[in-house]
Amino acid sequence: MNPVPTQVSRRSFLRSVGVSGGAGALFATMGALGLAPTAAQATPAYRAPRPSDFTLTGRSARKVVILGGGIAGLTTAYELGKAGYDCTILEARDRTGGRNFTVRGGTEQTDLDGNTQRARFSNGTYLNAGPARIAQWMVTLDYCRELGVPVEVFTNQNASAFIYNEQSGMTPGNAVRYRTAKADVYGYVSELLAKATDQGALDTALSADDKSRLLSFLASFGAIGNKASGYAYTGTEHRGFTSDPGAGNDAGTILGSVPSLSDVFSSNVGKYFSFEFGYDQAMLMFQPVGGMDQIPQALTRAIGAHRIELGAAVTGVTDGPNGVQVTYTQRGKVRRISADYCVAAMPPHLMARVPHNLGADVTAALGSFPVTPVGKIGLEYRSRWWETDYKIFGGITETDMDLQHIWYPSYGHLGERGLIVGYYNTGSAANVYSALSPADREARAVAQGVKIHGDKYRTELATSFSIAWHRTPYLEGGWTSPPYTSPGYQLLLRPSGRVYFAGDWLSHAVAWQHGAFVSARATVTALHQRVMAG
Amino acid sequence: MNPVPTQVSRRSFLRSVGVSGGAGALFATMGALGLAPTAAQATPAYRAPRPSDFTLTGRSARKVVILGGGIAGLTTAYELGKAGYDCTILEARDRTGGRNFTVRGGTEQTDLDGNTQRARFSNGTYLNAGPARIAQWMVTLDYCRELGVPVEVFTNQNASAFIYNEQSGMTPGNAVRYRTAKADVYGYVSELLAKATDQGALDTALSADDKSRLLSFLASFGAIGNKASGYAYTGTEHRGFTSDPGAGNDAGTILGSVPSLSDVFSSNVGKYFSFEFGYDQAMLMFQPVGGMDQIPQALTRAIGAHRIELGAAVTGVTDGPNGVQVTYTQRGKVRRISADYCVAAMPPHLMARVPHNLGADVTAALGSFPVTPVGKIGLEYRSRWWETDYKIFGGITETDMDLQHIWYPSYGHLGERGLIVGYYNTGSAANVYSALSPADREARAVAQGVKIHGDKYRTELATSFSIAWHRTPYLEGGWTSPPYTSPGYQLLLRPSGRVYFAGDWLSHAVAWQHGAFVSARATVTALHQRVMAG
Repeated sequence: MNPVPTQVSRRSFLRSVGVSGGAGALFATMGALGLAPTAAQATPAYRAPRPSDFTLTGRSARKVVILGGGIAGLTTAYELGKAGYDCTILEARDRTGGRNFTVRGGTEQTDLDGNTQRARFSNGTYLNAGPARIAQWMVTLDYCRELGVPVEVFTNQNASAFIYNEQSGMTPGNAVRYRTAKADVYGYVSELLAKATDQGALDTALSADDKSRLLSFLASFGAIGNKASGYAYTGTEHRGFTSDPGAGNDAGTILGSVPSLSDVFSSNVGKYFSFEFGYDQAMLMFQPVGGMDQIPQALTRAIGAHRIELGAAVTGVTDGPNGVQVTYTQRGKVRRISADYCVAAMPPHLMARVPHNLGADVTAALGSFPVTPVGKIGLEYRSRWWETDYKIFGGITETDMDLQHIWYPSYGHLGERGLIVGYYNTGSAANVYSALSPADREARAVAQGVKIHGDKYRTELATSFSIAWHRTPYLEGGWTSPPYTSPGYQLLLRPSGRVYFAGDWLSHAVAWQHGAFVSARATVTALHQRVMAG
Repeated sequence: MNPVPTQVSRRSFLRSVGVSGGAGALFATMGALGLAPTAAQATPAYRAPRPSDFTLTGRSARKVVILGGGIAGLTTAYELGKAGYDCTILEARDRTGGRNFTVRGGTEQTDLDGNTQRARFSNGTYLNAGPARIAQWMVTLDYCRELGVPVEVFTNQNASAFIYNEQSGMTPGNAVRYRTAKADVYGYVSELLAKATDQGALDTALSADDKSRLLSFLASFGAIGNKASGYAYTGTEHRGFTSDPGAGNDAGTILGSVPSLSDVFSSNVGKYFSFEFGYDQAMLMFQPVGGMDQIPQALTRAIGAHRIELGAAVTGVTDGPNGVQVTYTQRGKVRRISADYCVAAMPPHLMARVPHNLGADVTAALGSFPVTPVGKIGLEYRSRWWETDYKIFGGITETDMDLQHIWYPSYGHLGERGLIVGYYNTGSAANVYSALSPADREARAVAQGVKIHGDKYRTELATSFSIAWHRTPYLEGGWTSPPYTSPGYQLLLRPSGRVYFAGDWLSHAVAWQHGAFVSARATVTALHQRVMAG
């Protein structure tokens, strides 16, 4: 993690609210500053509860009520169920998965502002409105393996995708391909460092061998000229071709008009390059075949639909010496459920509003963590013009417009229709979009995309569906970012009586399903240990 | 393309024999030196012959005999067939596709040294023994679209894959992940350039704005410290984690022990980094679902199997004023075929041995192009230990051992078994392996792989199949690299009487199917224009 703020919107936003989307880096930084717990508290290898834990000890599994059927809640039921716990999930929405939500033709949703959308996507087209990518190291993939969910590559990076920085002076139609931007930045960086090295400016830091090896690296990395040419960067095939290499004497035409060093750095294209180095974002990344909701669907099947109450909005939690009572409404009726334990796997800021007897500290902690606004739109097109016209088969175009990111689809290559994520934005940019009607969101996203891709971005559009997570009932946020050292965070890591908490917001992988999985595992482990000790 | 030789084996080998595998770069260099034809000779947009070309003009389609059923030969028949040409392909092997060859369980092959192998791969496991990846810009993808061949991502790059340079002092078990190598190299490069910039060493090249923007880029790119810390690189989460971020207070543990600048550059890891910038190698790349041979199979179906003579080895070509006669042997019998035109789409060095009356210049030219030895081995494992133990889901590990490259599979993720390409090597390294028996090739590849992955690389192995293209009948080489400015190359771009030539070796995309496709298109265009003019 770069201790100097970058200008990439999501990452800088996350940092501004006190957490890195990536892999606990801020925590590590805080550790270096003496602000964090002194030693890394690594989770021991996870061991799922087993039926034999009970049969061998004479103890019996208990009844557990789980508030929320997102990934954390589902995983809690799934893991406890392995040992025979009697789990019931109360889920306020009409489907499990929480923010793991795949929109297909027919999906209907009404937001808190009264906007109702019904997706008219064609058969086989979908939008992963929430989580959409999985890094190789994440336990999410272990669950895909265990549950039999097939995966395919998520295209998080593409040399053929574009960068469009209009705040740095780029004009419509003049977006730059990643490959070109990299070639120019790396070329000039190499030229500058080679010159400085050769002139002896770094002799105190470099041995003769170091210098020789460094110059050799820069020649390859930056595709620069030799010493006689002053190590000049003058372009390279890495920039791409205006006419591709062909038959006979057609060597193709390398993209020319290399901009000056000043123009390259003032275009600010380099600020996106470190994204692909992130531990959580580096390729290769993956997605379930057919939609991210294959994961909650598989979990739901494994748990058993009879253990899940849909449309069940929690209205009260009462912890007692012998158990927990939860009240909820379902189809207009007030219902009540008793259990030995409760796991609250709802968004913390919503749990804070549920009447309970866990104490004011718990309420305050639950309501204290910053919530990030997040939006996405899926634009279905009648043709895959980005493949035929631009030779872009997936990946992400970065912009400094408030759409922030455009995602080309990672599935359906070479097909007839396809779905582009027309914006994926956070913070104030997400608020700008969510303040609009769905039709106006589409219009704004298309008007911005046209600057990169021209009129087809408008004329080929078939239909769209947008989501504003912060305006979505029973979620009301993209993700919640706890200050890890706060007393409130530490409080919620422990059970309040017989009530436990779980969710990605109780992990160092906020906004990732990995965080929900590992938090659920930690809660399951703690609860099971207590039962076994009791 | 970098004008300074890099140390990556395949690329430097290609350069040493006079051609870049990538996109005509050498040609461009030669152009700059005044050695090449003065202007780029871009191929006009391809227009396939149509039936209406004949019906509207009163001309009739002709009979064409095509020598070789590889991609160039198949494409020639496919494209001419669109207008009703009567094409016959003579293919010496028992299958079409040429070097586009997918090995599955039951595939049998005997090489020129008498080694017979029969693949014992399990169901669903395959090895793309020849071409295995497709860049987004290549017409290969257009053919996949036209022919209805589904594609998926080929994983040409993975931050989790390894680099192992034993010639630079790395020892078994101490391979470095790409993500770690990049973090350290980019970190020190950024530190050095930031220092030089800050000290004014580059003030003649940089304005104050340039300096400020460059420092901002380096901070993000190299994850270095600020000015007060001397812009020091001291590690970053980009290096990876020894313990992944988890629940609660488990921030994970960033991989530590950052090596010194001298150690990083002497490890020579950076020489591999520019590979991913290549116009022909940059992600995203693709492969057909189920094996590369889905392309020749689809072409074969489109052409019609009745137009293809298998086991037909050409023994003579006689060009005459009114047609071409071709003799061949098939199932022990000498056969003869007459046609209006002939397209020779065989490897040139093999065509050079076929008796013909096209002249000594043609023979000399055909036999004059350097041929590259190329080898590959597919190692099928009983478990996908690279996924479970190393969290590697595809991509390439680079080494300076003579196995050169290890490829993790781009298909079958999360499954039970899987196939690793245990070596993909060229030049002298390929010769070292091809001199061994198949069993000894396996043993050598495994012994080298164990240095990176430990004993499982041996103990989990189920079976293997290796290919040495330079020792494969009717092919006898990985690819053939013409000097583009040679009179011989120019001669073979033109027909010799009624005999045309086609193949990737007549393009600026040698060793790529793209080259075979565009060459075939060029030949089809020339032949059809002649027929239409005649």
